[in-house]
Amino acid sequence: MPFQHFSIIESTLREGEQFSTATFTTAQKIEIVRLLDRFGVEMIEMTSPLASPQSEADVHAVARVVRAEGLRVKLLTHVRCKREDALRALETGVHGIDVVIGTSPQLMQHSHGKDIRYIIDAAGEVLSFIREQAPDVILRFSTEDTFRSRLSDLYRVYLAVADLNLVNRLGVADTVGVALPSQVTLLVSELVRLTGLDIEFHGHNDSGCAIANACAALEGGATHIDTTILGIGERNGITPLGGLIARLYTLNKAYVAKYNLRVLPELDRLVADICGIDIPFNNYITGASAFIHKAGIHAKAVLADPETYEALNPADFGLTRTVPIGHRLTGWNAVRRRAQELALALPDHTVQRITQEIKARADSTPLTPAEVDQLLVEASQAGEIHT
Amino acid sequence: MPFQHFSIIESTLREGEQFSTATFTTAQKIEIVRLLDRFGVEMIEMTSPLASPQSEADVHAVARVVRAEGLRVKLLTHVRCKREDALRALETGVHGIDVVIGTSPQLMQHSHGKDIRYIIDAAGEVLSFIREQAPDVILRFSTEDTFRSRLSDLYRVYLAVADLNLVNRLGVADTVGVALPSQVTLLVSELVRLTGLDIEFHGHNDSGCAIANACAALEGGATHIDTTILGIGERNGITPLGGLIARLYTLNKAYVAKYNLRVLPELDRLVADICGIDIPFNNYITGASAFIHKAGIHAKAVLADPETYEALNPADFGLTRTVPIGHRLTGWNAVRRRAQELALALPDHTVQRITQEIKARADSTPLTPAEVDQLLVEASQAGEIHT
Repeated sequence: MPFQHFSIIESTLREGEQFSTATFTTAQKIEIVRLLDRFGVEMIEMTSPLASPQSEADVHAVARVVRAEGLRVKLLTHVRCKREDALRALETGVHGIDVVIGTSPQLMQHSHGKDIRYIIDAAGEVLSFIREQAPDVILRFSTEDTFRSRLSDLYRVYLAVADLNLVNRLGVADTVGVALPSQVTLLVSELVRLTGLDIEFHGHNDSGCAIANACAALEGGATHIDTTILGIGERNGITPLGGLIARLYTLNKAYVAKYNLRVLPELDRLVADICGIDIPFNNYITGASAFIHKAGIHAKAVLADPETYEALNPADFGLTRTVPIGHRLTGWNAVRRRAQELALALPDHTVQRITQEIKARADSTPLTPAEVDQLLVEASQAGEIHT
Repeated sequence: MPFQHFSIIESTLREGEQFSTATFTTAQKIEIVRLLDRFGVEMIEMTSPLASPQSEADVHAVARVVRAEGLRVKLLTHVRCKREDALRALETGVHGIDVVIGTSPQLMQHSHGKDIRYIIDAAGEVLSFIREQAPDVILRFSTEDTFRSRLSDLYRVYLAVADLNLVNRLGVADTVGVALPSQVTLLVSELVRLTGLDIEFHGHNDSGCAIANACAALEGGATHIDTTILGIGERNGITPLGGLIARLYTLNKAYVAKYNLRVLPELDRLVADICGIDIPFNNYITGASAFIHKAGIHAKAVLADPETYEALNPADFGLTRTVPIGHRLTGWNAVRRRAQELALALPDHTVQRITQEIKARADSTPLTPAEVDQLLVEASQAGEIHT
């Protein structure tokens, strides 16, 4: 099964740093790493040590923490396909190095200005250098903007790199968020077939398919998926950690049983706080509305059996569901349930009359839970007087 | 081509009303309808007139506005598979009626308590009744929770309904957000093949595939896609209008040329304001970070040619891109561009020195644009003194 053997490469400290308001301090990076390790992600990717003095110091600092505290997570850093970058990366003591170079016509022209022949030569030189220096380092080679690259260019590059027998993993990247799930599955499965290597997928979310594409990569045989907390990254970001978990959980809860799911809300809150952003109202699992059931038909069914309208059980994430009943779409089954919670023995026709009253009053402004309770208690007291 | 002939069924005034904080007034509903008509959606779906007194009055009111103002949009309302619901819907003067009934084991047990035989009979009775009353009404029949229903049950129901020759359209609904794109394409294409009818897709986003699944439905031959503004709806909602537009635009801008794209930001702001929510930072097209390019490599390339890292042109939506340069990931090409904008003639080595200074200072706190400009102006003045 394609979904049973995969690893998460958590890139909040690399891709996530490229989000507009993200500037992590050393202490914040260490806090994020510890919490991600507690959640159970297999790998964490950090910004290149060449980005800035503190970026370099932080890779060293986090590597020391990972060793000193015996964290299980593997630490990676992400560098351009250049010998100088590779050398600085090796000096940090990370477990793995992720090498990347753009292969689309757009990036070959405007990013590095080189052609495919140069890319193949540079990959050979830099990967050989890294492997000589560090026989045990986890080595990945990825193209950038894979899904706008010419297929013949991709195969030339990947097959040349695979033939070197130097890397542990090949990466494919939907850098501008244009790939279709069917395309991702096809390319990944072809690379698996042709090279036999582990395959990593990195997908941007500009057109809303980053989660579906990550899942499609796993269907094609990918072994590693890049995520960030809340999906933060360049522009509107990449596959969110929580979104990937939600997707795999709905396919089969067993696929994500290896992770400590109750840590997810803490991760989302931590990064939102650090970046000064709100968790989106519609965020997977941890958004304010993720487990609110409003319409009467939904409320009735969820109160009978939550699985009717819940593919995810909030309790698995340490969260709870909400069934508000003070609005115009409310139904009498949910109102009856509230009366029962209040230990009020009201006949069905009374509950139905109160439901109609709630609907009519809520047509201008929703009622608060206290106002609904008051209606129920008053009806109960009126009933006692008349009996 | 599957993406060239499709209609949007905009359900902000039905599914969207099921979002936790949505309580639209009559005036707000009319404002949303006018703006959606200006954007160019083909159909608008409203809450059942049975939901509450104001819900019923609002369908009448909006239908009057659509007629009086000659709006192009078709107005639909959404009802249970019951004769009483259908009758009240017909009385409102809408162009179309969307009939729905749950077919999954979960919903058959806990929502309406009926079996497939009952569903087929009820569909026949209610659809015949509607067609007798209103020969020209646009009539849709949809199952609910389609992707957790037994395939044999689905085919029994859809084939029985198609055989009646009463409906214009069949609907499939991923009610709890569990479908995979490949499943959606397969089911839709089978229904097209078996019935020849128009097919509508309605997809929830609990596991992040609502946009990918809508696109997959179109790939399978679907003709109608349900959306809401910002994706609001039960729990974390459905396919967002802006997200669907982003997805189709990245496939081929011509697919969305029929819509007035510059209205999209206004729609997102309007609904966010009414619901008292923030537009998510990572929202498609209109999120605060959608067109921010931060890392030095990205900034350099985007300044040379925006298509390097932009699958969507912000100008098409009346928006602009941002390339901040006061942070630790900045690159000297972007800093040089800023010097040029300020008409400062600085040699490359000076710009590179300033870039290193920005990176080092921004390692603690990002610099404001004014602080970066000051560094450039000061360097220019120092240069003038020495020459």
